Formats: sequence, C-alpha cells, structure tokens
Amino acid sequence: MIELEIKMPCPDLKALERRLIEMGARLEGDLDQEDVYFSHPSRDFGATDEALRLRRENDRSRITYKGPKLDLDTKMREEIELDVEDLARMSLVLERVGFKPHYRVVKCRRVYLLQSVQFCLDRVEGLGDFVELEYEGPDLEEGKRKIMELKRHLKLEGNERRSYLELLMQKK
Amino acid sequence: MIELEIKMPCPDLKALERRLIEMGARLEGDLDQEDVYFSHPSRDFGATDEALRLRRENDRSRITYKGPKLDLDTKMREEIELDVEDLARMSLVLERVGFKPHYRVVKCRRVYLLQSVQFCLDRVEGLGDFVELEYEGPDLEEGKRKIMELKRHLKLEGNERRSYLELLMQKK
Repeated sequence: MIELEIKMPCPDLKALERRLIEMGARLEGDLDQEDVYFSHPSRDFGATDEALRLRRENDRSRITYKGPKLDLDTKMREEIELDVEDLARMSLVLERVGFKPHYRVVKCRRVYLLQSVQFCLDRVEGLGDFVELEYEGPDLEEGKRKIMELKRHLKLEGNERRSYLELLMQKK
Repeated sequence: MIELEIKMPCPDLKALERRLIEMGARLEGDLDQEDVYFSHPSRDFGATDEALRLRRENDRSRITYKGPKLDLDTKMREEIELDVEDLARMSLVLERVGFKPHYRVVKCRRVYLLQSVQFCLDRVEGLGDFVELEYEGPDLEEGKRKIMELKRHLKLEGNERRSYLELLMQKK
C-alpha cells in the first residue's frame, strides 16, 4: 500500500463540502483531534528529526513515536504507535521523566470519501482551514491521476508540503 | 486506606499453601508478572530514587512511574500508572527515545485471602521464593496485630524490607 496525499489551504470549506456532496461523496465521520508534541529531556528532536506525540482522537488516546525520515525523496519514517488508557496520566508519566509538552496541534477533521480518494476537511486552530486529499491503494499512477483530476475539477489551488506541526513551529 | 505489608523468604511455599488451605484461605488467583525497569537517557534513576516500569501481568500491560519516596519513615511515593495496548510497542517507543531496559523482575504470584490478609506466594526468578502478607484496610493497628499473629501462627520468619528490584540490583 502506498500512501499518496496532497494538502492545501481552503478558504471556503463549506462550499467545498457542498460540492463534494453534490458529486456523491460519502461522509465518513468527524474527528476531534488534539496532538501534543513533547520535547526530549536531553535530545533536540528538531535536530534529530524525531517526534513523540500524544493524540486524543474523539475518545481514543494514543502515543506515537516518529523516527527520522529515511530518505530525502519520500516522507517514509519509522512510526511506532499504540493506544493508551488515559492521556492525562500518560502525559504526566512523560513529564515526570523530563519530557515537556512543546507544541499543540488541535483540529476538527471531517472526512468524505469520493472515488477512493479521502477528503479531510480540516479546521486547524491557529492555522486556518485546509483540505487534504489522500489516495490509499495499490496503483500509484492511478492515484496521482485521480487526485490531480479531482483537485482541478474542484478548483483547489496550492500545495502545502509542510505538516501542521511545521507550520505552527514556523509561525511561532 | 493504609497499605501494610511484610515480606520474607519462604523456603517451602508448598507447605505454606497447604497450611493456608487448611485454615480456610481462599485462592484469589495466579498472576504471571514480568516487570522491566528502564534506565533514563540522561538521569540516574538510582540517585533520584525514581523508577519507570513496564509490567506484563497475565494479559494486561501497564506502564508505571514511581517518584522518589516522600519521607524516610514510610514508603509513600507518587505512583502514576496506566494500561497500554501493547507492551512490546511501548517498550520500543521508550527505547527509541533513549530509555534502556535495565532490570527484569519475573515472578509467579499465587494469591490467597485469609482473615482480610492477602498472602502472595511469590516465586521470583533469580531470587527464590517469598511470601508477602498484606493488609488493606482502615484500621492500621488491627492490621498490624493480625499480620503479626498470622506470621507467628504460620511460623514464618524474617522480614525483608528491600523490594525484589533492590534485591536483584544488589545481587548483580
């Protein structure tokens, strides 16, 4: 499975949502996500290109470690993730051993599916509104074609390659 | 609730178990416990009197932080604990950010209840067999009296104040 995604600012999410519904997109759900990225007690995660994240997604709590990108061309990186029982307590454990909550990314994400492309309509606190198109499937070329076609058809413009975390860090 | 416990080596757990059953003790269950204590990437947990532990107990996985003892008289310390979905993945997250598995305490624990005293019959890998008597209740004096009476009655001798972790560390 290859994950292919493109993201761009979207000044009018409501209009986009209406268009998607007209085109037959199916609402997959609403996700209420709050991510907290921690700094390391003795390592500069910015320099090592790693991240330690706690995510609340609706009622689910998860911890994720992201390793450095494995090469320059792709965004491939080691990702280790698991559910935890209680986010506040997990955060406290991390803080007690010297990690500090450093960046907070809060977003409401509404997900639609159209022609095997996932549309994530994101309202990101402090950054504004974005849409992310994601194709998950075996055929990379077909995915690229489909994403570009839908992007053109919906008159979506731009290509934001930076993650929300990177955007927030650069804004600070 | 005050937790009151006493622990001692027990050369013949089988004989003790028979005596407990004769006296009407109720079998509470068998616990298969494996604890891994981690060292910190930049802090000496031995010096700060802290601990970070992953515990597998039968099918349950937990992470626990133990803070320094709060005073010299009691064993009171902050303890933050939560369940995690997957022990191997949690361990990997910790290792990736610089923690190292340092000590491993493995034991089989069989628990009996007799007169509101819990008897933990422990077989500890590398240390041998122990019994722990624990009273959990509101009346400290009553608990002490009961524990001492049962200890005498069962001809249990000794009083090991060190934890299994401390015993293993001193053995190394």
